[in-house]
Amino acid sequence: MAPSIELNSGYEMPQVGFGLWKVDKATCADTVYNAIKAGYRLFDGACDYGNEKECGEGVARAIKESIVKREDLFIVSKLWQTFHDKEKVEPICRRQLADWQVDYFDLFLIHFPVALEYVDPSVRYPPGWFYDGKCEVRWSKTTNQQTWEAMEMLVDGGLTKSIGISNYQAQGIYDLLKYARIRPATLQIELHPYLQQRNLVGLAKEEGIAVTAYSSFGPTGFIELGMDRAKNVAPLMEHDAIISMATKHNKTPAQVLLRWASQQGLAVIPKTSRPSVMTQNLDSTDFILDQQDMDRIAEMDLNLRFNQPTNYFQTSKLSIFD
Amino acid sequence: MAPSIELNSGYEMPQVGFGLWKVDKATCADTVYNAIKAGYRLFDGACDYGNEKECGEGVARAIKESIVKREDLFIVSKLWQTFHDKEKVEPICRRQLADWQVDYFDLFLIHFPVALEYVDPSVRYPPGWFYDGKCEVRWSKTTNQQTWEAMEMLVDGGLTKSIGISNYQAQGIYDLLKYARIRPATLQIELHPYLQQRNLVGLAKEEGIAVTAYSSFGPTGFIELGMDRAKNVAPLMEHDAIISMATKHNKTPAQVLLRWASQQGLAVIPKTSRPSVMTQNLDSTDFILDQQDMDRIAEMDLNLRFNQPTNYFQTSKLSIFD
Repeated sequence: MAPSIELNSGYEMPQVGFGLWKVDKATCADTVYNAIKAGYRLFDGACDYGNEKECGEGVARAIKESIVKREDLFIVSKLWQTFHDKEKVEPICRRQLADWQVDYFDLFLIHFPVALEYVDPSVRYPPGWFYDGKCEVRWSKTTNQQTWEAMEMLVDGGLTKSIGISNYQAQGIYDLLKYARIRPATLQIELHPYLQQRNLVGLAKEEGIAVTAYSSFGPTGFIELGMDRAKNVAPLMEHDAIISMATKHNKTPAQVLLRWASQQGLAVIPKTSRPSVMTQNLDSTDFILDQQDMDRIAEMDLNLRFNQPTNYFQTSKLSIFD
Repeated sequence: MAPSIELNSGYEMPQVGFGLWKVDKATCADTVYNAIKAGYRLFDGACDYGNEKECGEGVARAIKESIVKREDLFIVSKLWQTFHDKEKVEPICRRQLADWQVDYFDLFLIHFPVALEYVDPSVRYPPGWFYDGKCEVRWSKTTNQQTWEAMEMLVDGGLTKSIGISNYQAQGIYDLLKYARIRPATLQIELHPYLQQRNLVGLAKEEGIAVTAYSSFGPTGFIELGMDRAKNVAPLMEHDAIISMATKHNKTPAQVLLRWASQQGLAVIPKTSRPSVMTQNLDSTDFILDQQDMDRIAEMDLNLRFNQPTNYFQTSKLSIFD
């Protein structure tokens, strides 16, 4: 069993979970079902991943076969930006719960803190960044405070146990903490040896917010999206320093990368479709990287972010990490 | 005369101004007076610079001697974080106006978007980042929206013609634009060849916000503060590429650095105490860097920020640019 992290909401969150971004619809139900069998209890989903219905099928099958009970699982989902308007938050959360076939989330996150104009799910779902599905960005006038108040009401209504944020910059976190009646339990951010975000992690720690690292394998997850920036640096799993640590500890490079994060107290949410790798990733917390290892990885920071809209789309309207 | 930029508030702002950060109290009145004589019309001050009274003396002398009239000048000041609480904004703005001996500012900026607990000016002024003047950070519960509403009321009350922001990250700008009744006229940010901020500048352009670049000479302004990070890179004015452009255009390296920004449509606010350099800096808009020059400087970006609190102070509580 992976260790867990105590959240400021009073709940326990597994430190190693399963990330559902880019999991193919066609195989998603099986992947979730297999991951549960492999021992995963936390599943990190989102409207935007376009596979929540299939995730729900995988969960339902595992529950039906008595492999787990609902309360054994820690299900995470995220609010997409087109649903930031106050009156849209609860309805879309209910739809996402229905897709998952559950009646509460353990954690529901604001995916990105920039409200976009509402797109009716019957028109396009998931809606993506663009109003027309192509290149027109339309902002909503909803503020982050209004959206957060709607998120707090999800907790009040029992639709989610905890709420949190993803992809927030420091200044947005400070602002949120001034108006939050319920503080964010977690902050989910891109974090790997090429983007170590030490100050942001320090801020979260200082404020009692647990951090979940996504894209722990760095460029690897972005090469499949055709991103030049990801092709221009060495894949972390083939990096000499990581390989030599893996050899030293008799672990895989992936396990080293996950352990580097979990040893700092961060949660991780790796993804794979291969059952043997599922098990390896989950079993990544039973060894210790020594100070020499940690120091060597610390040197690898390039402040290199892959997951920002301007890397995917040619529009300065979406410069949201600058 | 330096060219001017039309602001979204309808006013014209000189594109080259005089920056007052780190101008010694002892010589500040003379410096401002001399800068006016040299032809400067925009002065960029702030509570935090600790010299507004002396700035006001320099301005008053120039007006008294009929070198300029008040309406010829464009006076900029900034709201410090300890005055973000709604009821503190107008009183401190009035005090700053009194220090400047004027009855309106042309532009008043939020200096940093992170509210700190109020410090009475009779206790310590300027108050700085720390509640106790040493190392205790105390946040105020005031949100950026509340502070912005108070800023808007300064415009309503005629205390300032325009309002703007400084040191905002992208997400904070998007949030602000959702609640702003009066949009920010300018965004003032650190910007030089080592920190080019192209996406943030693109965002501002897209949203009709003028950008003022501060620290145009990069590390030079920070070496005097003893910052290691500034000592570890080549001074821009001694950089081979900048020197060779200066030689080519028969200009100083400082003029090349300022022109690189102004040619992009940005305003600049260099500082110097030497009258001959004052004139050179002001006369930095009458030549054109060719495409080869611009391309060469574009390559120099290191995404290297000098002016962040964590570079000065050992506290993760002030990780505000992460």
